[in-house]
Amino acid sequence: MDAATVDTPLYLQLAAHYRQAIASGVLAPGARMPSVRALMRTHRVSLSTALQACRSLEDEGLLEARPRSGYFVQAPRRAVLQPVQEPEPGATAASPDPAPYSGIHDRISDFVVKCERHPVVTNLALAFGSPECYPQEALKNAALRALRRRPEVLVSPVPPQGDPGFRAVLARRAMAAGMSPTPDEIVVTHGCTEALNLALRAVTQPGDTVAVESPTYFGLLQVIESLGLTALEIPTSPSRGMSVEALELAFATHLQIRAVVVVPNFQNPLGCVMPDEEKARLVALCDAAKVALIEDDIYGALSDDDLPLRTAKSWDRSGNVIHCGSLHKTLAPGMRIGWMLGGRWLARIRMLKHAQSRANDALAQLAIAEFMGSHAYDRHLVRLRRLLKAQRAATAEAIAAHFPAGTRLSMPSGGMMLWVEMPGGRSSGQVFDAALAEGIRVAPGLMFSNSGRFDHFLRISCGTPFNPNIEAAIRRLGQIVAAGG
Amino acid sequence: MDAATVDTPLYLQLAAHYRQAIASGVLAPGARMPSVRALMRTHRVSLSTALQACRSLEDEGLLEARPRSGYFVQAPRRAVLQPVQEPEPGATAASPDPAPYSGIHDRISDFVVKCERHPVVTNLALAFGSPECYPQEALKNAALRALRRRPEVLVSPVPPQGDPGFRAVLARRAMAAGMSPTPDEIVVTHGCTEALNLALRAVTQPGDTVAVESPTYFGLLQVIESLGLTALEIPTSPSRGMSVEALELAFATHLQIRAVVVVPNFQNPLGCVMPDEEKARLVALCDAAKVALIEDDIYGALSDDDLPLRTAKSWDRSGNVIHCGSLHKTLAPGMRIGWMLGGRWLARIRMLKHAQSRANDALAQLAIAEFMGSHAYDRHLVRLRRLLKAQRAATAEAIAAHFPAGTRLSMPSGGMMLWVEMPGGRSSGQVFDAALAEGIRVAPGLMFSNSGRFDHFLRISCGTPFNPNIEAAIRRLGQIVAAGG
Repeated sequence: MDAATVDTPLYLQLAAHYRQAIASGVLAPGARMPSVRALMRTHRVSLSTALQACRSLEDEGLLEARPRSGYFVQAPRRAVLQPVQEPEPGATAASPDPAPYSGIHDRISDFVVKCERHPVVTNLALAFGSPECYPQEALKNAALRALRRRPEVLVSPVPPQGDPGFRAVLARRAMAAGMSPTPDEIVVTHGCTEALNLALRAVTQPGDTVAVESPTYFGLLQVIESLGLTALEIPTSPSRGMSVEALELAFATHLQIRAVVVVPNFQNPLGCVMPDEEKARLVALCDAAKVALIEDDIYGALSDDDLPLRTAKSWDRSGNVIHCGSLHKTLAPGMRIGWMLGGRWLARIRMLKHAQSRANDALAQLAIAEFMGSHAYDRHLVRLRRLLKAQRAATAEAIAAHFPAGTRLSMPSGGMMLWVEMPGGRSSGQVFDAALAEGIRVAPGLMFSNSGRFDHFLRISCGTPFNPNIEAAIRRLGQIVAAGG
Repeated sequence: MDAATVDTPLYLQLAAHYRQAIASGVLAPGARMPSVRALMRTHRVSLSTALQACRSLEDEGLLEARPRSGYFVQAPRRAVLQPVQEPEPGATAASPDPAPYSGIHDRISDFVVKCERHPVVTNLALAFGSPECYPQEALKNAALRALRRRPEVLVSPVPPQGDPGFRAVLARRAMAAGMSPTPDEIVVTHGCTEALNLALRAVTQPGDTVAVESPTYFGLLQVIESLGLTALEIPTSPSRGMSVEALELAFATHLQIRAVVVVPNFQNPLGCVMPDEEKARLVALCDAAKVALIEDDIYGALSDDDLPLRTAKSWDRSGNVIHCGSLHKTLAPGMRIGWMLGGRWLARIRMLKHAQSRANDALAQLAIAEFMGSHAYDRHLVRLRRLLKAQRAATAEAIAAHFPAGTRLSMPSGGMMLWVEMPGGRSSGQVFDAALAEGIRVAPGLMFSNSGRFDHFLRISCGTPFNPNIEAAIRRLGQIVAAGG
């Protein structure tokens, strides 16, 4: 442990030691890491220190834990790919750029239409898992039971806000993320998209400004424009999420900001998680400024380490946070079920939901309540996290192998997306078109901002178990990028 | 047949003869009408004439046909209740009243919240049938089959615009109403409410004006206000629907009208059907004025005489008509399935649907496609129409028996609603509150307009098979009305 200094905690010294061994090739990819007991003996450290060291290396992507077999060395993709860069200091310090909004709607519409019309062989643009990631049979059986037990729901009035039993299950599940809603505070919606629409309609008027992460999910930009609102993009760190400092500055300089929308856990497309202290600061800032904070937490349950991530809502004491969720990523992409905690806008949200689409029908809610109320849901989530972690790792490895030198990559600790920075001013629009012509679909970076700032990025999804087709598609994509798009 | 004149067709002379016999008590309520063969013999008329006479009396509500038993005399409610009055001539000729919009949203919200909070024993405010009106078992079995055959839809991407098979069935069914859409022109929505939202969002901007019937469905007024639009109420005849003359005048004097919304078949709350020539004139007028015509046709399949009614869309040649429908009234109140034909706004509507709630999930569509594609749906509709006709007749009779003198009543030829005009300036808001306090829910007339013009009306639903509870509720309602609300 010669590389360590006396000020560094013991487990980090131990980790640094093995990091060097891996970098030098002493421990080759695929090799077994010494067992925890061996580490304790060899380095005279406690069980806790040995474990922390291994987990730290695992978090860096250098080691992989295999159940009952211990840790193994991963392929050294970090050696070729640098992490995605932080926003330029200037971008954070200066006033955020209120990029003119015109065009993004058309741009996204073009993308959606092209995607629908073009035959696709390998789809790397989906923001949800492939069918084999989800418990089809168990869901089917839950739906069959719900139908046999409660067929009257097909022909009976629909309860406002959604099925009470389903909302009770949601309320129980919300506790793991630090929230404690009553079922009555929950409104069931047609997916998180409808929840975001209702949240924005509840707290804004056409002409208002909404602060969003930059880059951000293009679907959100589309919602914002379709409601006659303007998006203000706040610099967002690939490691720490939306810059609270930049947001504070924006509040001071843009008086029309009526809402902030964030994805604090596994942000789309960056994959970053806001540290808890940042989430707390964000909640406090919005509360003090009387600007509604709308939280989209659809990826929060997909953390590699099985520990539930806290939501911004969990710090909310004044009802200023509207929390939105759905099962589209975690359980059933084919069932359009979302929900929201309306905070102090609950009554207005209920009424807007009534005016926009009435209450959701009950059958899907009953089926899901049946499944989510059981341990089968927890077991499914454990399996899904393992799958996604492996798929992300394999995809990252393929990108490292096939993309040109200078490519950079986000390294999320959960979720199903990678954010890839192409070298040398490539245009993601050109790469998208060239790839689509060969049946490969990716999400071009230019979709994730009203500015052109992210045009040299691609979002690559890892929702499908890695296979030779995906490998081939990524190889081809790397060639397209290398050729300049 | 002494009451007849030589100019009157023979069957009307025969009908007049028996009308008099019924009015005078010669044929008492419940008595059997002479058989058709007896009429032929007695009056030396043809089979056709005898049948026409009976059907004419049936249409007036004087006779009731019982399968395999012939015609029976109904209770003489026409003797005490006049039909609802036409709008005052002044109202039609003068400029329509752009009633200030403030308040209606709150008013409707209050109504919705009161309804949800108050325990209800007898609900006469629902605009759909009770569960026994719908084929619960057959729908359940269709859903079970769909689940077993296509469980992958629970975990797979949802097709844009909705399930293709379901849209194909809808396209076939649309032909009966005179339309000929391709499945690709249909967008599946979360009920007709979402379809109306999308239609209005597609053709208007906040601040625009939308022409509607007066009175009109309060849900529509709520949608209009929630989208930042202004409703302009066009005088509407209880027998012929929206006045096309008044609309033409409105076009000439209100430049901000961007859309017209009509319910041409069994309008809510009036129950009127626009004659075909009026529908055609309306379509032509809107087309010439380049104002979008949005048609809500959710009741069109519920005609007493089993003949499908034509839609306004069936006259549309330029794509200027957006047609909206749903199964909420006709098949499955518990399943939130609607659809729309977007006309020339199809692309914009598709994108707004994508931004607002994404495509509907497939399961409910597959189940309904299974049912609607078969003759079981036709048989269900025949049964439903018979039920509704009988329920409307029995409810009208109870109103005639228990409401104070001077009460007037609409006499629709289909659907499930009666529009009741209370005598002597009663306030529907007071009647609503007093009735709700006793567990009886009705829809107060003040909900159906931004003006106070219909405050002395009640809408009474006939969706539940008539029973002693309903009879008692209507008796009590009559007492409340008689007491002045």
